[in-house]
Amino acid sequence: MATILFYSVNKTAQTTARRCLGSQLKGLASAGESLSPLSSAHSRSVPLLTGTRWLSRGTKVRFMSHGTAGRSASGKTRRGALALGGAAAVTAAAAVAGFLANTDHFQRAEMATRVPRTAKETEEEGDILERCRGFMSPPVTDINVLQERKDEMRTKMEMLIMETQAEFCKALEKVDGGKFKVDRWDRKEGGGGISCVMQDGKVFEKAGVNVSVVSGNLTEEAAKQMRSRGKVLKGKDGKLPFVAMGVSSVIHPKNPHIPTVHFNYRYFEVEEEDGSKQWWFGGGTDLTPVYIDKEDAFHFHKTLKDACDKHHPQHYPDFKKWCDRYFYVRHRGESRGIGGIFFDDLDSPNQEEVFSFVKSCARTVVPCYLPIVYKHLNDSFTDEEKDWQQVRRGRYVEFNLVYDRGVKFGLATPGSRIESILMSLPLTARWEYMHEPAKGTREAEMLDALRNPKDWV
Amino acid sequence: MATILFYSVNKTAQTTARRCLGSQLKGLASAGESLSPLSSAHSRSVPLLTGTRWLSRGTKVRFMSHGTAGRSASGKTRRGALALGGAAAVTAAAAVAGFLANTDHFQRAEMATRVPRTAKETEEEGDILERCRGFMSPPVTDINVLQERKDEMRTKMEMLIMETQAEFCKALEKVDGGKFKVDRWDRKEGGGGISCVMQDGKVFEKAGVNVSVVSGNLTEEAAKQMRSRGKVLKGKDGKLPFVAMGVSSVIHPKNPHIPTVHFNYRYFEVEEEDGSKQWWFGGGTDLTPVYIDKEDAFHFHKTLKDACDKHHPQHYPDFKKWCDRYFYVRHRGESRGIGGIFFDDLDSPNQEEVFSFVKSCARTVVPCYLPIVYKHLNDSFTDEEKDWQQVRRGRYVEFNLVYDRGVKFGLATPGSRIESILMSLPLTARWEYMHEPAKGTREAEMLDALRNPKDWV
Repeated sequence: MATILFYSVNKTAQTTARRCLGSQLKGLASAGESLSPLSSAHSRSVPLLTGTRWLSRGTKVRFMSHGTAGRSASGKTRRGALALGGAAAVTAAAAVAGFLANTDHFQRAEMATRVPRTAKETEEEGDILERCRGFMSPPVTDINVLQERKDEMRTKMEMLIMETQAEFCKALEKVDGGKFKVDRWDRKEGGGGISCVMQDGKVFEKAGVNVSVVSGNLTEEAAKQMRSRGKVLKGKDGKLPFVAMGVSSVIHPKNPHIPTVHFNYRYFEVEEEDGSKQWWFGGGTDLTPVYIDKEDAFHFHKTLKDACDKHHPQHYPDFKKWCDRYFYVRHRGESRGIGGIFFDDLDSPNQEEVFSFVKSCARTVVPCYLPIVYKHLNDSFTDEEKDWQQVRRGRYVEFNLVYDRGVKFGLATPGSRIESILMSLPLTARWEYMHEPAKGTREAEMLDALRNPKDWV
Repeated sequence: MATILFYSVNKTAQTTARRCLGSQLKGLASAGESLSPLSSAHSRSVPLLTGTRWLSRGTKVRFMSHGTAGRSASGKTRRGALALGGAAAVTAAAAVAGFLANTDHFQRAEMATRVPRTAKETEEEGDILERCRGFMSPPVTDINVLQERKDEMRTKMEMLIMETQAEFCKALEKVDGGKFKVDRWDRKEGGGGISCVMQDGKVFEKAGVNVSVVSGNLTEEAAKQMRSRGKVLKGKDGKLPFVAMGVSSVIHPKNPHIPTVHFNYRYFEVEEEDGSKQWWFGGGTDLTPVYIDKEDAFHFHKTLKDACDKHHPQHYPDFKKWCDRYFYVRHRGESRGIGGIFFDDLDSPNQEEVFSFVKSCARTVVPCYLPIVYKHLNDSFTDEEKDWQQVRRGRYVEFNLVYDRGVKFGLATPGSRIESILMSLPLTARWEYMHEPAKGTREAEMLDALRNPKDWV
């Protein structure tokens, strides 16, 4: 598991960047819930330096690459690289995964949520450069720019989504043993993204964790569509400068006893005619098991509820309901999974408090999911159970292609980076005619929970 | 391969009908291109006799059942049943399949198109009852009603779609060795359908052939939406009595060297305020191979072109183009397959001539496709070729769920019979991140043909 360090525009970075920039980027940002609805790309090639310029402005920071291209370029091990980088956000995640392997699952989850937090909170006050070391890739925005405006919300959020991506990817790599392929892409009109994908791993059939940070100008109509409450925004000559960013992920494991998880946390900023800024946050985390495990469901929802309760007693009940409503496969009369939380267009009581809430949510991703993965890691399963998983994957595809706002928006936007949008689809899926589980089976129990959403906490 | 004969409301018919009527039917008809966009259902059970009343009005005709429920109830063989029934439409199909196994593929195709036609044309002048004997199930409309109005277009078309279903199903059963499961369903507001599905057969991964005949009242807005040219129709108190019927099919074979085929032929009739009837036809047949075989492509298009040319020299070029335009996966910049023909809202020069054209098209289904199936029946394939097939299946799912008008309309219509609408989805599919075949491979050749539609004839 050797990882390489790259520095400024060295050879390895070039290789990685060239692979990553094979197709490249324009399009429009969207307010979707899918994996990387924000990402968009076009197919004209760009010079390599565009992709690596983040590294070329005297920052002299070492970044880790997780692609396959440069696997053997350095003798450093992952452990060494992390130690060198001192990226506490990342080592914390790795530590969490380590703990998880040896203690009781849900006790571990508690530890995971609580223990590393103090170090992290402290670190956030620290140096941008220092924090960037643990990321899967240099951030989308130039590090010097991030340093210059480190107190602005867009910087704070970009750092959070990059950290969330790294923390989650590394926790997944730890349990799987595989490596994420890291694709950086630029958007001609402004911004870009970082897509991390692990496919056909030991534990995960397909795991995608995507960051995108895009900016440019919106029409008033597009701006209106981006807000779920459809507020009218007034632009200068009809144009509204905007920035939209988010981290999103869908993880499809191989073992049918390990559920699929999805999360997405995003931030929007639009500048109106008078120079005032409209901003809002959205996001959510939800679980799609193949079989009901009440203990898992309780753990997942309880972890989210605890994070919500720290901020407002109505957050969990409201956002749990919103989640059940949103992830609904209407033509089947079934929820996609057992829910979690979902919210959009959140802008009160104030920016700091909403950000603090979103941060709490983003930081529950690992403790929500990883304990469940470890718990079922060695569960045996039958061909019939695998088939049922594949049928449920088919329903997942139906939701994502037919209903998901982000996917629909992305597919309808010319020049979108389709591969990032459709990363959320499972590696394999199945459609059986008239499939209906027999009464009293665990498959029927699952369907019942999807047809009649339950309170798990 | 014993088949059973059932008669009036005998025990076997009851078993079959009960299985078929497990869920039952309401909803609205649609003008879609998907498998069974017309079908719609609700889940309330109906008494058995509704399903079998076609047989209980003194018609004393024997129908063959093709379900698995009553396989052993009679010692009669399929061959015996067919001989007894004397349904030339069906025996012709069986004969075609027989020929196909022993002569040159494309010569066989010629024979298949030409030889049985004379017998069939004569037979069409014959008794409705006699012709119904070869169907997969009694027709949707009561046989007495069909006999009473045997000169009306709705009767002629219902007989054609039932015959097309039977002919195609039997040709597929012959090559596969498996049996279609036959589901009859009724629609509360009028009409119903017959879904024939063979799943996980020896040759076919999933084969669906669906007939639906639905009637009722449309709103003026719905009527307008049903016509591709969006003509305004004037109803009595805003209501327009209508009938919509069609046969549609999608066949996904297991062997990646056998292409997927889709066809759909449909007819609409709407009665305006003054009692005058508006009518139109639509349809098409198209091929989705996994690998390019120019000989297959030529044969497929040539067979369609010959059928078209008998009616109008512009039909093939126009409808070929329409097909390329319609079956287009926009977000991928790829056609779904190598096309065929597609047309909608066809109502000139007159009803008889358009029907005659549609009949010619429907009758090319077997000779278009079966020779290709037989040709590749024993082709060996690698795991890599199977994977590429699965990736292409994923694109098929993308088209059907994201763009197909029939599927979209069906899924959006409350109470639709979802299983019939989604019968068109493959049994299995695959999504690989950033899948791009290497230059010079047969996979790249296929992609090129999808990105740059070709003239095959």
